[in-house]
Amino acid sequence: MRVLILGGDGYLGWPTAMRFSGQGHEVGVVDSFARRRWVEEAGSHSLTPITSLEERLQAWSEVSGKDIEPYVGDISEGTFIADVVREFEPEAIVHYGEQPSAPWSMRSVDNAVVTQANNVIGSLKLLWAMRDHAPDAHLIKLGTMGEYGTPNIDIEEGFIEIEHNGRKDTLPFPKLPGSLYHLSKVHDSHNIHFACRIWGLKATDLNQGVVYGIETPETKLDERLITRFDYDELFGTALNRFAVQAVIGHPLTVYGRGGQTRGFLNIVDTLQCVMLTAENPPASGEYRVFNQFTEVFNVADLAEKVRHAGGELGIDVQVDHVVNPRLELEEHYYNPTHTKLLELGLEPTLLSETLIESMLEVVRRYRDRVLPDVIDPVTLWRPEPLGQPAH
Amino acid sequence: MRVLILGGDGYLGWPTAMRFSGQGHEVGVVDSFARRRWVEEAGSHSLTPITSLEERLQAWSEVSGKDIEPYVGDISEGTFIADVVREFEPEAIVHYGEQPSAPWSMRSVDNAVVTQANNVIGSLKLLWAMRDHAPDAHLIKLGTMGEYGTPNIDIEEGFIEIEHNGRKDTLPFPKLPGSLYHLSKVHDSHNIHFACRIWGLKATDLNQGVVYGIETPETKLDERLITRFDYDELFGTALNRFAVQAVIGHPLTVYGRGGQTRGFLNIVDTLQCVMLTAENPPASGEYRVFNQFTEVFNVADLAEKVRHAGGELGIDVQVDHVVNPRLELEEHYYNPTHTKLLELGLEPTLLSETLIESMLEVVRRYRDRVLPDVIDPVTLWRPEPLGQPAH
Repeated sequence: MRVLILGGDGYLGWPTAMRFSGQGHEVGVVDSFARRRWVEEAGSHSLTPITSLEERLQAWSEVSGKDIEPYVGDISEGTFIADVVREFEPEAIVHYGEQPSAPWSMRSVDNAVVTQANNVIGSLKLLWAMRDHAPDAHLIKLGTMGEYGTPNIDIEEGFIEIEHNGRKDTLPFPKLPGSLYHLSKVHDSHNIHFACRIWGLKATDLNQGVVYGIETPETKLDERLITRFDYDELFGTALNRFAVQAVIGHPLTVYGRGGQTRGFLNIVDTLQCVMLTAENPPASGEYRVFNQFTEVFNVADLAEKVRHAGGELGIDVQVDHVVNPRLELEEHYYNPTHTKLLELGLEPTLLSETLIESMLEVVRRYRDRVLPDVIDPVTLWRPEPLGQPAH
Repeated sequence: MRVLILGGDGYLGWPTAMRFSGQGHEVGVVDSFARRRWVEEAGSHSLTPITSLEERLQAWSEVSGKDIEPYVGDISEGTFIADVVREFEPEAIVHYGEQPSAPWSMRSVDNAVVTQANNVIGSLKLLWAMRDHAPDAHLIKLGTMGEYGTPNIDIEEGFIEIEHNGRKDTLPFPKLPGSLYHLSKVHDSHNIHFACRIWGLKATDLNQGVVYGIETPETKLDERLITRFDYDELFGTALNRFAVQAVIGHPLTVYGRGGQTRGFLNIVDTLQCVMLTAENPPASGEYRVFNQFTEVFNVADLAEKVRHAGGELGIDVQVDHVVNPRLELEEHYYNPTHTKLLELGLEPTLLSETLIESMLEVVRRYRDRVLPDVIDPVTLWRPEPLGQPAH
């Protein structure tokens, strides 16, 4: 299969590119290096010493004997993505090419605009490029569970049957996203659904939970193949950030009461899910949504797990409840469905104490690279003073 | 009240500005003249010979003794709208400042991008400007009934109570918009709802039906005060387009079977609705949605009404069912609620035969200005061949 990976230089994109290439698919990666730039501009860097895309591709070629084609450019600009799609002729497009941080999107009007322009306009140009040059390709789009927010009913996979005044229809599940970043993914979902209805494109929207983990089988093959790992307040996600905090002796920063409950999955399961999705494409005109996570935790429980695993390694981990910089419910109902990927054969790698310990061990290897100043939350959802979320 | 009208040089924006000014409010209009430019680039022009904004303001000042402050610029660019909001200190902001045509948005990737960037990024910058400089102002945002599409259940006003697996919540009404333009309004709605939840802004989203009509009491005061009136395939809406076709002897272009059912309202009711909304603001943090239309017609019935009214004036009107350039259901259930504006006191001006006749009379005055080549639909929703809409 010819597979184009947008954002193929990123945390998930790079391991995904190697996975597809390793399994014998023809892979192209598209990236503008925006993620590297944004993290750098925020005064941080990847915990892991990642090499340049050029070096990665060279190392991958040496290790696997396989070539991955790079396309460097910004999908939201000019005709770049249309040109790439026309030239590469993809059968599947895995789209990670978006600004991925909620706090980054809330930092300033400029960040908000870059987030929505980059994500929404970039994806819109991609859809149009598919319409014109690859109408039979399968778009595998990374969305987020955060599109749904925390409604007081069970969350279904993308659609819900509604009975109202004696009539019924199956309609898109209502969305209550919690940041301007999450909103950009909601906008994408609506645009993609439309492109499937109108242009007959086929797409799978993967509403992914919070990803944790550093290594995949491919990244371990050669140190030059390692993927990025962020732990700062902007780009570091809950468990990854906690792992770094534990190792350097920084108290774990639980936002507010920590009752915020979310779906989580291991990075190796992201690769498994994307592969299963690519191997089982929808029909032309079909827009599917899969909720992509394996377990549900609340943030306080997660911190407790890290504290305990740290203890096993002789690390005395403190847990700190800091003022929540976000506006979100800290106690809420949360019961999202996630059966579709399991039905396709997903075999979850669940979060065990051993797994956390091994994450802590990997983080330890790079502890000298940690910049402790970038960890504490400073980006606020609301100017000040901080209040409680409006409903 | 200090009222800022975005898109205040447009079809609805200009009469709205005069209405508020005439009633003693302090009015500023913001416009980039994009609508004039887009219509011109499409090879068309307003049926009515509109004057420049400068001339309009001068004429209004002569006629009413009142000044309206102009702000010329693009709300999606730089810090323009933030500067205007800071300087003008609005108490209400009526936002018509968007690319308003569905077919225009479907014409090319560039048009699609301009539509979503102009509308979504423009509105996002406006929200951020309000957050920083006018957090207590009331945003009155023009959305569209087209955000909902044509679901098989009754359409509520913005929100719907859903009972699911024994639990209940009131959530945003699911959206199935029918064009990239309609999608831009869906994106706006999500962003505005978020801004109310997070930043405590107050907003009313007016999901407006198809507006018809040429004159308002204010536009009749002086010929220089007339508002624009478009009849081309891109910017002309159903009834307005039919009126021009009837007058020049062009068959009425009903798309497909004409069973498409939509909400309609007279331009004078748009002004009434916006004024009622401004006079009854929501609380801080509240996001309201009003469905803004007075009657529901299907397109074939509307053509029949115009044919009949034409007959009364001695015009022999033909009705032509042309191949539908859009992908939309041509027979469908449609029962949208619209009680909230009536509860605020809206007194509908219903579509009568007399009213159509008087529209035809006004169009006749300008019939020499009609460009017959811009009327037939050429902008297709799908490259080709035209098929039936996917569900």
